[in-house]
Amino acid sequence: MDCPLCPASAEQLIWEDGRCRVIRVDDDAHPGFCRVIWNEHVAEMSDLLPADRRHLLDVVLATESALRTLLHPDKINLASFGNMVPHLHWHVIPRYRDDRHFPESVWGPAQRQGIVHAAADPVALARAIDSALATQA
Amino acid sequence: MDCPLCPASAEQLIWEDGRCRVIRVDDDAHPGFCRVIWNEHVAEMSDLLPADRRHLLDVVLATESALRTLLHPDKINLASFGNMVPHLHWHVIPRYRDDRHFPESVWGPAQRQGIVHAAADPVALARAIDSALATQA
Repeated sequence: MDCPLCPASAEQLIWEDGRCRVIRVDDDAHPGFCRVIWNEHVAEMSDLLPADRRHLLDVVLATESALRTLLHPDKINLASFGNMVPHLHWHVIPRYRDDRHFPESVWGPAQRQGIVHAAADPVALARAIDSALATQA
Repeated sequence: MDCPLCPASAEQLIWEDGRCRVIRVDDDAHPGFCRVIWNEHVAEMSDLLPADRRHLLDVVLATESALRTLLHPDKINLASFGNMVPHLHWHVIPRYRDDRHFPESVWGPAQRQGIVHAAADPVALARAIDSALATQA
């Protein structure tokens, strides 16, 4: 099986524990774009055990909180599709009113050239994810 | 404030409790498309209290499970954007390899005319959501 998300190669790793990892997505228009990847090859959220599902969502929302704290975007976009790669992963995207696609999704038609807002510092982002996880209770 | 998601008017309501509701989305190409709307006007998942966040995600994933049980789609797509309407809501979309946009998101470019797969029966869907919530633990 040739799944591009099973091996963690050529990724800009931000954070990981034994079950999932947060990477930075290489997107010229949206440098703050992060992806949370479940390590095991599973297709759907409802394929996970309840405790695992909860843990993955905790990490997704900790990444959301961390990006909000560090980047102050106008909106956060969350999505899990898996149509092209049916290995469970979440897109966590800080959005800005003046970015290339707003208010369309980043997979929609471009609206303008757009301002490119900087990515979070990876070390600060990892710390902010830890901090958000610790306070999510 | 003119938020189109605050009043529950002209909606095809499937399921509700005091905190959120599941409606059917009027989409010609994707009749199975459902939306889970948090009743209170809040923008982001991380604006919710942990218990509310967990409840909303439980309903989103119960809707995913119910759609899988009733419709057997090839994939489920989950997304929360709120760029156009910053009132917390989730898209839960059963996807099929031969639908109009697969493997693109339903907001991406059409790939073909596409097969239109039927929506779930609303009463059966409400029951399946209840059943999934009861077993999620």
